[in-house]
Parts: sequence; C-alpha cells; structure tokens
Amino acid sequence: MSFEQLRHKPLVALERPRELVIACAPLRSNVNLSRIARAAGCMGVRKLIACGAAKVIQKIARNSVDEGDGEIADGDEPGLEISVHRTLAPVLRDLRTDGYRLVALEQTTNSRSIFDFRFERKTALVVGNERSGIDEESLRLVHDVVEIPMYGLPYALNVGTATSMALYEYCRQFPSG
Amino acid sequence: MSFEQLRHKPLVALERPRELVIACAPLRSNVNLSRIARAAGCMGVRKLIACGAAKVIQKIARNSVDEGDGEIADGDEPGLEISVHRTLAPVLRDLRTDGYRLVALEQTTNSRSIFDFRFERKTALVVGNERSGIDEESLRLVHDVVEIPMYGLPYALNVGTATSMALYEYCRQFPSG
Repeated sequence: MSFEQLRHKPLVALERPRELVIACAPLRSNVNLSRIARAAGCMGVRKLIACGAAKVIQKIARNSVDEGDGEIADGDEPGLEISVHRTLAPVLRDLRTDGYRLVALEQTTNSRSIFDFRFERKTALVVGNERSGIDEESLRLVHDVVEIPMYGLPYALNVGTATSMALYEYCRQFPSG
Repeated sequence: MSFEQLRHKPLVALERPRELVIACAPLRSNVNLSRIARAAGCMGVRKLIACGAAKVIQKIARNSVDEGDGEIADGDEPGLEISVHRTLAPVLRDLRTDGYRLVALEQTTNSRSIFDFRFERKTALVVGNERSGIDEESLRLVHDVVEIPMYGLPYALNVGTATSMALYEYCRQFPSG
C-alpha cells in the first residue's frame, strides 16, 4: 500500500449540526482555552461557552472562530461561536433548561470511565479550571461525570488535552453529527 | 447522584506494560513535544522517540519523564523514557525490525479513518512535523496511515492535540495495556 500526503482534503460532511456544546469554567490560561477552540472548530462544534476573563488567542485558535458576521474567509461553513459569561453555574442552569445533558469531565465520587460512557447527542461537556476543577455548585447541576483513566505520571492531563480526548470520544460516537 | 471532587485518585493498573511507542518526526515546537510527553506519561506509555533538536520542557511535560536513574520522585512507577534521534526514517526501520506495526497519523492517499481502525497492541504511532507532516521516505516505511476526520475550520488539529486523540483511541482499545 502506498501513501502520499494529501493537503487540504475535503471536510467530512455532517448530516446535521453538532449538538455538542463545550462549557468551560473560568480557566487560568487563555492558551488552553484557545487550544480547545481550535480542536472544537476542527471537529465541527458550533458553540463554546467560556467564563471569566476569557479571550481567545487567534494565533493558537487559528481561524476556528466565527467573527460574528457569519462570514468565514475561506469557506461557507459556519465557524465556532464563543460566548463569554462571568461564572459557570448560571450557564449550566440555562443549558439544563434548554434540554442538554450535562456531562462534566472530572474525577469525582461516582464518576464513570469515559471508555464505558455513551453520550447523548444533545450534550454539554463541562470542563473545569486547571487547578481547582469544577466547583461544587456546578457539580450539583451536572447529570454525569466522566473521567479519563490515568495510568502514570504526572497523573493529570492538561485541560486542553483532556477536553480534546473527550471531544474525540463524542465525535467517535456521533461521526455524522 | 452526587459528585464530589477526588484529587489524587489511585492510578488504573495496567495488566502489562503498554506496548505503544510514539515516534515523532523533528517538530518545530518543543512545546508540542512536551505536551505529547505529558499525555503519553499519563496514559502509561513507556517510550517516546523524538527527532531533531528535541528538548522536553519540564514545566509543560511535568514529571512524566523518567530522568534516567529509574527513580521517580513521588512513586514507584517507571516514567516515560524519551530518546532523541537525528532523523525519523532510521528509527522506523529499527521499529519494524523489532516487530512494531507502524501507524502514521496523517492525511494521505489510502489513509483510513481512525474511527474504524483496530490498532495492534505492539504499535508505533508515527507523528509528523507541524507544517510538513511525515516525509516521503518515512511514509514508505509505515504499514498503515490513520487520519482523524476533519469537520470544520481551521481544518487541521494541532499536532499535540491530534496525537493525544490517537493515544486516547489506542488506550480505549487496550484499557489494560
């Protein structure tokens, strides 16, 4: 079998818009937020909710973000929409009202391995702060907690890496949206 | 269901050492290499091969890397061993000789979606440069090429993000090593 590089391969078309929303607690690092934005854009996610002093760094996020006029320079696909809120819990209450299944990425009592978890299509993936994770009030609002098994040092994934893995798993379960 | 944060949860024990090796082409960014090292350490990978002017940044990789004396400060687990070579192709020849299945992460002719791909346990995951990907000589040496489907802008994942997703998929298929 021969393999030749293909640059700019056509995108995989989704049969319907992704119903996954990513909701981030206030993060320490806008680098991490921007990496999450880039991964989310690539995977066809339409909505990222950030909290606190969040600002996407375009050099890292690349052109994943819809600038708000609905026009993307080099294509017709809608980009990722990012909204910024002060704190996480009110965001989660709104998402619950809108019918999202709230799935937190965290290590908690009663958390389940992501390897065995079936996502619902309409899911909000809830991501915690790099140091403090997801606050108690927010944890009381989520339906499920999933964790990525840890096998070795340094015992904790970077928040952008962990979010990307969970995003991958969701997309694996819903390859067509 | 109630969820309370657990810090420093015990590691998941592997039934056997991971037989996954990650082999990276010369990368532009030691930040990316270091993020791969951190993710690999967390997932129990024992061996990362870097090429070119590779240097792991400990602040990013955290304490994933075995410093060579076999002693890790806060545990008995062996850490990740990193070796650095000049170029990728000779590394791949050696891995082939050692019986590894060489799986490149790239978009090529004949590449397959990672969603449908079954890894062999003894696999070397081959990762390309941020801009130029995997060179032709190296592509001639691999057995398979897998790609992560792209659904939207900016059309290309960061190399550390893509590697983390592929690493996740391998571990999902071999949760106990």
